[in-house]
Amino acid sequence: MTSLVIVSHSKKLAEGLKEILEQVARDIRIIAIGGAMASSNSDILGSDPSKIKETFLSLANDDAIFVLCDFGSTVLSVKYAIRKLPEDIAKKIYLLDAPLVEGAYAVAVQISAGSTVEEIIKSAEESRSFRKLS
Amino acid sequence: MTSLVIVSHSKKLAEGLKEILEQVARDIRIIAIGGAMASSNSDILGSDPSKIKETFLSLANDDAIFVLCDFGSTVLSVKYAIRKLPEDIAKKIYLLDAPLVEGAYAVAVQISAGSTVEEIIKSAEESRSFRKLS
Repeated sequence: MTSLVIVSHSKKLAEGLKEILEQVARDIRIIAIGGAMASSNSDILGSDPSKIKETFLSLANDDAIFVLCDFGSTVLSVKYAIRKLPEDIAKKIYLLDAPLVEGAYAVAVQISAGSTVEEIIKSAEESRSFRKLS
Repeated sequence: MTSLVIVSHSKKLAEGLKEILEQVARDIRIIAIGGAMASSNSDILGSDPSKIKETFLSLANDDAIFVLCDFGSTVLSVKYAIRKLPEDIAKKIYLLDAPLVEGAYAVAVQISAGSTVEEIIKSAEESRSFRKLS
C-alpha cells in the first residue's frame, strides 16, 4: 500500500482536501493531519510532531509514504518527526516540496495510476506550473 | 474593503484555509465557498455558480475582490458567475491563477500590507515558486 499524508495547520483544510482526493484516488491510503494538539477533536491551528510521528509509525508496513504540507511549522514538525523514526520507516517517506492542494491532487492521480516513485515526485514538482484559467 | 474569496469543491477545505488566513490577515474580508449545493450545510463536493454569484453581489461595495479556486469546475463556476454579474461589480473581481493555499496566503499578506492590485496579483503568481523545504 502507498499512503499520502496531508499535513496542514488546519484539521478542516486537511480533511477537506482528503475528501476531494478520495473522489479521484484508488489503491491509496489518504491521511489528513491538522491542528496543534494531540486530541482528535482539536480545532486549534498548528502542528503536532508527536501526532505526525505516530501516524508514520502506523504506516510502517507501507511501500511508500508521500507527504505534503501547507507551510512553515508543519514542515518543521514533519522533518522533526522523520528524524525520530526508525531508519527503515524514515527511508520510505518522501516529503514533497509542492503546492499543497495541486501537489496532493497530482500525487493521488499518479499513485492511482501505478506510477513509480520518481514519476510521483516529478508530478508533484510539476504541479507548480499547473494553469487553472487557460 | 478588499475581499478574498476562496472557492473549493470542499466546503471544509475552503473554511479550513479561511481559518489559517485569518491568523495572518488584517483589514480584509475572507469568504469561504465550497460544496455543490446552495444550502449552507452542504457537505456534497462540487461547486455552485449561483452561490458564487450571490457572494459576489453581496460584495458590490468592495474596492476589489480577489478569487482563488482549487481547480476544474470551481474555476468554470466562478467564470460563469462573473459573466452573470453587472459590469460594475465584475470589473472589480480578480480571478487569480495560482496554487490555492499558497496563493491565498500570499494575497492575504499583501492585502494586509496595503499593497496595490498589481502587487497582489504578482504575489499570487510568485507563490508558484514558493519553496517549503529549503
